[in-house]
This record gives sequence, structure tokens and C-alpha cells, in this order.
Amino acid sequence: MALILKTDIERGNSWHRAFARLLPDVPLRDWRAPGDPEEIEFALVWAPEAGALRKFPNLKTIFSIGAGIDHLASDPDLPEGVPIVRMVEPGLTAGMVEFVVMSALYHHRFMLDYAVQQREKVWHEIEQIPTFRRRVGILGLGVLGAACAEKLRGFDFQVSGWSRRPKDHAGIESFHGADGLMPFLARSDILVCLLPLTTETEGILNAETFAALPRGAALISAGRGKHVVEPDLLAALDSGQLGGATLDVFRDEPLPPDSPFWAHPRIVVVPHIASMTIAETAAEAVAANIRRVQAGQAPEHVVDLKRGY
Amino acid sequence: MALILKTDIERGNSWHRAFARLLPDVPLRDWRAPGDPEEIEFALVWAPEAGALRKFPNLKTIFSIGAGIDHLASDPDLPEGVPIVRMVEPGLTAGMVEFVVMSALYHHRFMLDYAVQQREKVWHEIEQIPTFRRRVGILGLGVLGAACAEKLRGFDFQVSGWSRRPKDHAGIESFHGADGLMPFLARSDILVCLLPLTTETEGILNAETFAALPRGAALISAGRGKHVVEPDLLAALDSGQLGGATLDVFRDEPLPPDSPFWAHPRIVVVPHIASMTIAETAAEAVAANIRRVQAGQAPEHVVDLKRGY
Repeated sequence: MALILKTDIERGNSWHRAFARLLPDVPLRDWRAPGDPEEIEFALVWAPEAGALRKFPNLKTIFSIGAGIDHLASDPDLPEGVPIVRMVEPGLTAGMVEFVVMSALYHHRFMLDYAVQQREKVWHEIEQIPTFRRRVGILGLGVLGAACAEKLRGFDFQVSGWSRRPKDHAGIESFHGADGLMPFLARSDILVCLLPLTTETEGILNAETFAALPRGAALISAGRGKHVVEPDLLAALDSGQLGGATLDVFRDEPLPPDSPFWAHPRIVVVPHIASMTIAETAAEAVAANIRRVQAGQAPEHVVDLKRGY
Repeated sequence: MALILKTDIERGNSWHRAFARLLPDVPLRDWRAPGDPEEIEFALVWAPEAGALRKFPNLKTIFSIGAGIDHLASDPDLPEGVPIVRMVEPGLTAGMVEFVVMSALYHHRFMLDYAVQQREKVWHEIEQIPTFRRRVGILGLGVLGAACAEKLRGFDFQVSGWSRRPKDHAGIESFHGADGLMPFLARSDILVCLLPLTTETEGILNAETFAALPRGAALISAGRGKHVVEPDLLAALDSGQLGGATLDVFRDEPLPPDSPFWAHPRIVVVPHIASMTIAETAAEAVAANIRRVQAGQAPEHVVDLKRGY
């Protein structure tokens, strides 16, 4: 019985230290030196090569290092019947809440305009809008989206969410399904995308959906790059239909040097850092789930591969 | 009996509308056309000319439009015995909380570094520090400081405050007085200044206090410009002792075009907009206080001019 890790090298040590403490009886294996494949019962991975997980015949659970599992769902040769668990851990949630609240306040407080003023050495007060008149819409009300929605409510923003099925969160207006999308967009001055990437959500941020937003709306894109039709985003910014965007994720990552996003005055670019799984807190979540499986229970936060998240 | 207003012209109409609704029995007078000075019992003002308030012999209460009252305390010829009331109103508090939380998260999440990367088209992840390891220190734990402290605690930052006298806020470490200043600074990775401007606090942010901070600390200056010894701030940023600063207030406002702050890569400049009194909500606070005085009670939030705030 062993746990195999495929993480990035820099953070590998943090994971090793945490698991040595939390699961002293479970041997750890490195992806590049797996040892006897029959001993591997658990895998904690980011973007394994297609088919690679099939090499472990006794695999009981696959843990994704990130909240998204598109890096696994895209593998046409996954081992059958092995549950995939998405990452739900307090560090990842806290990081996304920080990033989304910061970015929402940044657009709410006209900081892109003030950045232009700073470059041009202009001192000019822009009339402030109270949060209770500002409508934030969150695409995707899963663990991350719901946590962001709740924190934004705490600033007195008008918050709504859109998801496949209706959701019930106190103080958050719920829109759902294809019919709910356009009314949801029409009341979103600040739009936050935290959807999973599925065949249904790919390209959901496009000319038509941008046009449905109030004029001058801001976009915070922190789900996956493929949610955004990038030329449509540029056109919406350049026409003024969108007032600004904070982009954490991109169709191609790292963002290519010739991307027009880098130098666009209405775009904030960050290198997919909105939230990172923190080994220290995440290892606890993974260890608890491994203990469940060892005790004969089903793991928590299992993905429905048909649904895609 | 009348209320005289000295506000800026743009926002004058909002005040008039609000008072017409809240105090229909109290005539409103404009600063430039006060009418019979004997009728003026209440004044709501920002930066009146020195001695100007003495012209109203029946003045009962002076209301400051802003949280700070240095624009009044600097008048050597104030009418004697007339209480001065600082502005405490939910809109002003909410705005400051938004600005301080946004700015603290901005520095916490290395956004100045990511802005440099964006300009240079560099894609590089900076290892994130969890909020529970990040120490935020707030200079000044009055109405605004305490509200900011509480909100930052909600993000799991380690929050402390420094004030003249010890304060008791759940989860906020309290430092006070001259002896408490250096230990407070030594544990402030992100320092927020929300002090009133008094003879004791002028120049409090100087070479000595910057040197007491952890290396690479960030400063958010949203009290008054004269708290900061500006050449010392530049030296601390240029030596790396300070990692970045968000500056809302300046010794000279508007910030002169030749100020080195405008183009400094580690400084965010905004034009004194961290928080603005919102006429709609503030008029309610002023009206309630006027009703108290009319009923023979003392107004709330009266300033101690000897103390300076």
C-alpha cells in the first residue's frame, strides 16, 4: 500500500513533510520512481500523462491537486471505476476568496482608472458607488463560488450566482440553467467566472454573453482559460461594453509573449495564481479521505465524470 | 433656526435633497449666501476659512464633513464653547473598509510584483503566504481602524492595532502609547495608517519607524499626508526596507506633478478617495444629532480639541 505523488518539484517537499506527519504508515512514492506499481493504492496528481494512471492495477482513489479536474477528465484512457476526488481544502478556498474579493473591490473602486491617472499624473476624484448598489454575479456556485459569494455579501454587494441547478445560499440570488443565464448576466456589474471546464461551459464567455452584461461591466476570470473566447473579450473591452478585466487563466499558459492581453490598459494579467492548493492544509484533506477509504467508506468530493466536475 | 452647509458644489445637491427629506422644518443655507447670521444654529462644513464660524453668534454645533477634524482644529479663531462633531456615518466607514481590505490584499498577494511581470510579459508564480502567517498592523483604532481590523480578521490575518490608550476588540492585539509603538511596528508586515492628525502624530511615519518594520513591509497611508515624512518614505522604498506603498493622502494635495510618487514602481497613488462621506447616509447621522441637540441632549461623537480628535 502506497501513495504516489505527481506535484511540481518546488512544492514536493511540503507535501512529503505533511504526509510523513499525517500518514506515517503510508509509504510515499515519487512519480518518476514509482517502485512496484501493484503497491500503489492512492495517487495525488496534477496533469498526469494520458494513460499513466492505468499502470497501477490496485489504484483505489485518484486525488486531483487542483479544484478543477479537467486535467484528468481529458485523459481518454483513465482507469475504469476508480473514483476521482476534486481538491477541497481550506487553503485553496481561502486563496480564491482573497483573490476574488480583492479583484471585485479593485474594479468596484475604479482602480484601473486611477492607475491611468497615476501614469498621467492626473488628480481627479471619481464619484464612488456604494456596494449596496453594485451587483456582483458569480458563474459557478460550488465550494469556491459559494465562499466568494458569502464574503462579498459581507461587504454589502448585491450578489447572485448562476449554476446548473438552483442553489440555496442565504442572501445570494440563485439563477440556473440555460434559461437563467441571460437574466443573470443582465444584472452583473462585476462578473466572476469560477465554473468548472466542461463541454457545456467551454467558450461561455463570448460576444453574446458579454453583450448581455450591463455596459461597462468588469470580468474576473479565475476558472479556466477556455471559458473565454479571447478575441471576443478584446472586442468587448475595446468597444467599452466591458470596462475592465482581471484574468488569471488563459487558453494557452504560460500566456504567450505576443498576446495582446499583456499590454492592454483595461486588463490585469496574473499567472494563474488566484488560488493555489496549500500542501500543508491540503494534505490534511487528502489524508482524511485516505483514512475513509481504508476504513471501507467512500471518499468525499468524488467527481461525476459524466457531468464533468 | 437654520443649518448652513459648506460642501463641494458637485455634492451639494445630494445634501440638500437628503436634508429636505430628513429635516423639513430646518431651513438650509448656503455658505456663499448665509442670510441672517443670527439664525444659523448648525453648520456642516469642510475646511471653512479661519474665523468664519465666529460670524454665527447662535451656533450650537459644528459638524465636520470628514472623519478628520484637522481642517477645523487648525483654525485659531474657532467660536468658543461650540462642540465640534466628527463625521461617523456608515458610508464613510464602509468605504474605508473596502479600500483598506482591497489594498491589504493587494500587497499580501504580491500584486505590485505581478504588475511588473505584466509590464515585462513575465509569467512567474510567486509562492503564496497564507493570511494566518501575515501580520497586519493598524495605526489608529478609532471607528474606522476598528472596522478595518475586524474585516481583516475575517480573512484570518493576524491583526493588531496601536492607539493612545489600550483598546479591547476581540481577536485584535492592542498596543498603545509611546512604549507600544516599536513592538507594534516590529510585527506589522502590512502597516495601515488611520490615525488622526495631531501634533503628536504628525511625521510619525519616518526613517526610524520604517526601520522598525519587518524588512519588505507594505504601507497603506489613508489618514493624512502629514503623518508621512515623504523623503523618508522614498528612501525606505528605494532601500527595500519597505516593499511597497499605497498612498491616498499627501502633504500637498493635489499631489504636485513633479512628485516622485507618481512614477515610482512600488507606489500606488490615489487622489484622496479611500473613503468619502456619502451625503445620503451621512445626512441621516447629522440629522439625528441635530434632533438630539434640539431635544436638549449633547450631540454624539464630539471632538476633544485638546486631544486633537
